[in-house]
Amino acid sequence: MAESWLPTLITPDPESGYALAVKLSRMAVKLTQPSAEVRTRLRPAYESDADALIAVSSVVAINFQTVAQANNFWK
Amino acid sequence: MAESWLPTLITPDPESGYALAVKLSRMAVKLTQPSAEVRTRLRPAYESDADALIAVSSVVAINFQTVAQANNFWK
Amino acid sequence: MAESWLPTLITPDPESGYALAVKLSRMAVKLTQPSAEVRTRLRPAYESDADALIAVSSVVAINFQTVAQANNFWK
Amino acid sequence: MAESWLPTLITPDPESGYALAVKLSRMAVKLTQPSAEVRTRLRPAYESDADALIAVSSVVAINFQTVAQANNFWK
Amino acid sequence: MAESWLPTLITPDPESGYALAVKLSRMAVKLTQPSAEVRTRLRPAYESDADALIAVSSVVAINFQTVAQANNFWK
Amino acid sequence: MAESWLPTLITPDPESGYALAVKLSRMAVKLTQPSAEVRTRLRPAYESDADALIAVSSVVAINFQTVAQANNFWK
Repeated sequence: MAESWLPTLITPDPESGYALAVKLSRMAVKLTQPSAEVRTRLRPAYESDADALIAVSSVVAINFQTVAQANNFWK
Repeated sequence: MAESWLPTLITPDPESGYALAVKLSRMAVKLTQPSAEVRTRLRPAYESDADALIAVSSVVAINFQTVAQANNFWK
Repeated sequence: MAESWLPTLITPDPESGYALAVKLSRMAVKLTQPSAEVRTRLRPAYESDADALIAVSSVVAINFQTVAQANNFWK
Repeated sequence: MAESWLPTLITPDPESGYALAVKLSRMAVKLTQPSAEVRTRLRPAYESDADALIAVSSVVAINFQTVAQANNFWK
Repeated sequence: MAESWLPTLITPDPESGYALAVKLSRMAVKLTQPSAEVRTRLRPAYESDADALIAVSSVVAINFQTVAQANNFWK
Repeated sequence: MAESWLPTLITPDPESGYALAVKLSRMAVKLTQPSAEVRTRLRPAYESDADALIAVSSVVAINFQTVAQANNFWK
């Protein structure tokens, strides 16, 4: 369990839940492109591409919805 | 807590919930492209690009759904 | 309250709920591109672009789902 | 009510619910591009474009989820 | 009922539910492009296009969520 | 049942649920492009394409939401 990258969806507050959503969004990229070298090479291009940044934001939004639901919206 | 950018998903009404959804949408961009200078440089281009504006609207829609659910749709 | 553009997600029926979903979809564009002049300039192009029209329809679909949930699907 | 294009989200069965989802998807296009002439002109191009057809399918999927939820999945 | 292409969203298990999600995804394409000849002509191109395949996967994911919810996730 | 590729959506923990979401995302591609040879040929290109990787991440996010809901978010 200690070595799991995703032991739980429960977080103490919305901000840490948002950080988990970002992590979830990046993990799919890592699993599809396991080479850190290639991912590092791709980074400068999409970091300066508005369309890519908006697309990233879309993925984070979906994952954040999941995390927020899991935490009963931290109510 | 005072320094958190996202202390809660609860808002007093739908309009402020929508503003929070916009903030959530922009935060993913900030976390992916931390340089304010680069983000400012990208802004004029996508602000005048209909496709980018529609894509932004899509991200806000997902985040607004999350915020609205969290607030039990302000009923 | 009277000046809010979004006082409530509750509507009398599905048709007015759909109109609200369209309004929600457009508001994100307005907040990202505040200039009415620029938005008016962009309009002719995307109004005649099938891909853009389908993308708009996608955003409306997400917002309509939110509004429909808020209204318990008008049942 | 008789003149409403969307009097209800309730349908007798899943197949008619899917047809309603298609109608919902097209209505956003109509409201954004009110000219039937322009829409008719755009039709041949996107009808033969795989990417556009897949995008249409995506919008229908979101709307069908809403309709299916409204009908308690016709259980 | 026997002639309906979608008599129910209920399936015996997740695998058949996934097959139904694929069917739902294709039906929107059929309803938008009724000509089997045109659809057959488009098939080779998008079947060898990674972007199109990922887009198809996205539509199936949305429909599978609907079917899974309808089946109470087969629990 | 033993031969089903998807006997259940229930997983022991979030990490294995995420792995299932990746599997669900790939299965739609397999069903649309059954040739392993073609899929292998496409792989190098999209694995080094930031836009494709983000799109993959989007599909995984949708499927992960479904799996997480099915598992009551592993609470």
